[in-house]
Amino acid sequence: MKALEERILKEGTVLPGNILKVGSFLNHQIDVDFIMEMGQEIARLFADCGVTKVLTIETSGIAIAMGAAAAMHVPVVFAKKHATSNLSGDVYSTKVHSYTHGTDYTVVVSRDYLSPQDTVLLVDDFLANGKALEGLIDLVSQSGASLAGASCAIEKGFQRGGDALRERGIRVESLAVIDSMTDDSVTFRC
Amino acid sequence: MKALEERILKEGTVLPGNILKVGSFLNHQIDVDFIMEMGQEIARLFADCGVTKVLTIETSGIAIAMGAAAAMHVPVVFAKKHATSNLSGDVYSTKVHSYTHGTDYTVVVSRDYLSPQDTVLLVDDFLANGKALEGLIDLVSQSGASLAGASCAIEKGFQRGGDALRERGIRVESLAVIDSMTDDSVTFRC
Repeated sequence: MKALEERILKEGTVLPGNILKVGSFLNHQIDVDFIMEMGQEIARLFADCGVTKVLTIETSGIAIAMGAAAAMHVPVVFAKKHATSNLSGDVYSTKVHSYTHGTDYTVVVSRDYLSPQDTVLLVDDFLANGKALEGLIDLVSQSGASLAGASCAIEKGFQRGGDALRERGIRVESLAVIDSMTDDSVTFRC
Repeated sequence: MKALEERILKEGTVLPGNILKVGSFLNHQIDVDFIMEMGQEIARLFADCGVTKVLTIETSGIAIAMGAAAAMHVPVVFAKKHATSNLSGDVYSTKVHSYTHGTDYTVVVSRDYLSPQDTVLLVDDFLANGKALEGLIDLVSQSGASLAGASCAIEKGFQRGGDALRERGIRVESLAVIDSMTDDSVTFRC
C-alpha cells in the first residue's frame, strides 16, 4: 500500500535492535482516518473469503483490527495477554515467545467468541518473527474455526516470520513489507 | 443511550466484586458497528468543543476511543501502562491506583502527541472510581492542553468516580449510568 510506505518513510524512525518506531500514526498516536483506509484495503484483499471475525492480540493490534472489521462489518475479538498460565477452562490459551522481552507469555480468548462456525482473519500492526500470529493460529485451531489468513500493516520481511507462515500455506497479506532497514534508510519489497 | 442500556440488560453478567461483564460486545469481543454508533453519539455530545485529540488508556478503552475519533476525524492517543516508573524524560507520566489489583501502576504518553495546542476528549469503556480518568487528566494538565471533558460507555454511578469529577467542574458524559446492580438486575440512572 503506497500511502503506508510513504508514511513510514516520512515519519518512521529506526531504533537499535531492528525496531521501527511508527508511534505517530500506528501504535501510540493513531491516525484513525488512515487506519480506516488501511482497514478498507485489508477488507478488499479478503473480500469473498466469508470472514466472520477479525482476531488480533492486545494492545497495538486493536486499532488496525477495528479498521478492517469496520470495513467488513464483522466483530473483532482480541486475545488477552496473561502473565500466568493459571486459567479457568472457559478459554482457549497458548504460549507465545517474546524475543523483545526474552520471556514466554500466555494469550487467551474466551471460548464464547470463537467457534467452528467462524471464519477468522488475523490482523496485527507488525509481523516480524511471526510468533504472535502463530499463537493466534493455534487459538483458531483449538476453536475449530476456519482460518482465512492474516493481514498485518507492516511486515519486517527480513525477519522471515511472514514467509515461514506462507510456506505453511497460510495466506499472509501485509500492507507494507520491509526488506531491509538501517538508521537512515528503509527498503520495501517490490 | 437506550441501545447500550438494552444491550447491557440483554448480554451483561454481574460477577462478584461489582464487576459487569460485557465481553460479548465491548471489551473482549467488540461489536464494531455498535462501537461506531456509540462513537457517533460521543461525537454528537462534544460537537463544537474543538476537540483535536481523543485520549484513552490501554487496553479496553482503545475500541470506543477509535469509534469516537472516527466520527470526529481526529487522532486517538492511548496512554501506555508501565510496571516501572523508570522512564525517559520524553514522556508525561502519572501514577494510577488499581483497586482491582491493589497496586499502583504508571501510565505514560509521549510528549510528541499532546501539546498546549490540543483540546483533548478523554474516552474509556468503563468509569467506576474514576482513578484512570484522573490519571489521564493529570497527563493532559502536564501537557498544557485543554480538556474538553470525558465520555465513557458505561459508568458505575454507585462508585461515585464520575460525580466526583463533575463536582470538580469536568464535563463527564457517560452513555449508560448504572445506579445499582445485583446478580439479577441492573438499574440505570434516569
